[in-house]
Amino acid sequence: MALAAKAAGPIYFGPFVVTSQVFYLTPLTYALVNLKPILPGHVLVSPRRRVPRVADLTPDEATDLFLTVRRVGRMVERVYSASSLNIAIQDGVDAGQSVPHVHTHIIPRRRSDLDHKGGTDAVYQLMNGEEGDIGRFQWQMMEEMARQEGEQGRRTGFPAVDNDARKPRSMEEMEAEAAMLAKEMEKEPLD
Amino acid sequence: MALAAKAAGPIYFGPFVVTSQVFYLTPLTYALVNLKPILPGHVLVSPRRRVPRVADLTPDEATDLFLTVRRVGRMVERVYSASSLNIAIQDGVDAGQSVPHVHTHIIPRRRSDLDHKGGTDAVYQLMNGEEGDIGRFQWQMMEEMARQEGEQGRRTGFPAVDNDARKPRSMEEMEAEAAMLAKEMEKEPLD
Repeated sequence: MALAAKAAGPIYFGPFVVTSQVFYLTPLTYALVNLKPILPGHVLVSPRRRVPRVADLTPDEATDLFLTVRRVGRMVERVYSASSLNIAIQDGVDAGQSVPHVHTHIIPRRRSDLDHKGGTDAVYQLMNGEEGDIGRFQWQMMEEMARQEGEQGRRTGFPAVDNDARKPRSMEEMEAEAAMLAKEMEKEPLD
Repeated sequence: MALAAKAAGPIYFGPFVVTSQVFYLTPLTYALVNLKPILPGHVLVSPRRRVPRVADLTPDEATDLFLTVRRVGRMVERVYSASSLNIAIQDGVDAGQSVPHVHTHIIPRRRSDLDHKGGTDAVYQLMNGEEGDIGRFQWQMMEEMARQEGEQGRRTGFPAVDNDARKPRSMEEMEAEAAMLAKEMEKEPLD
């Protein structure tokens, strides 16, 4: 599916091309792995059309998005041996949205998995902090690319406020996970 | 619609009858006002069938649920003069779910509305704390009813950990809001 996704042309998350991170694709919706997952199996599901708000989705797009969330959620819960899921949409900038393109966070959960971070509900702070915010990570990645090219990054200032801050994963690691998840999606019943 | 909801028979949220809090009803889905909204217009959308997990929903139920979320979200954003929405499902107990019945939180957001509580993302802590947790509030209400009857409450221990803790709203206030929102739903296009 990663290859099929590529064959279908570039897939955008906001202004970013994320084709190689995509592990599942329908005519209206895609699912992608994260640069810095909060927990193992933290993935995103988005409409292929770049619209900022849930209210901008057509009924067909909204339906396909949520059926994909349900199906992908079932898969990541199984593959990552989880027992629950956090499903969340920051629908608009005043709700914390960082990239103006609808995206649903799906985060597999296990009992006590975040006790060392403050408990079950720490997931939300992490989702909204530096970790889990793929938009900022994409900027960070672009910034790093710019830095390597000796240019000034477009956005600056990502201080390491958290000693436990995760490193962004390599493209190779993300592509390997996307390929694995694409295979696992094939095992999921359509309904 | 509040009356129509009643006419259709009792509507359950987990073990609780919430019929008079319901402001919108489809054959598969309902929307209800909150006992202690985190922010004005904080409502819940649930399947009528009492199932704990999104994966338990049939495709028709999942579709109807999310189309209802989209429609109700558009309405509360308009009625409460908001600019964004937080949409969240705690799908399973290890994700923080307190009542084993799928429910989608819809929370209208405005710029800087939670600055006094710690910023945009404080909504998640509030959603998961004492405030916003309708399940615990229903227990609390039952406990209060039991207390008034001179009996021991079924669950104890809701310390006032937050000086700013909201009081549960009266049934009259919730029914008035449900009636108002039912009228507003009639103004929303079906698509």
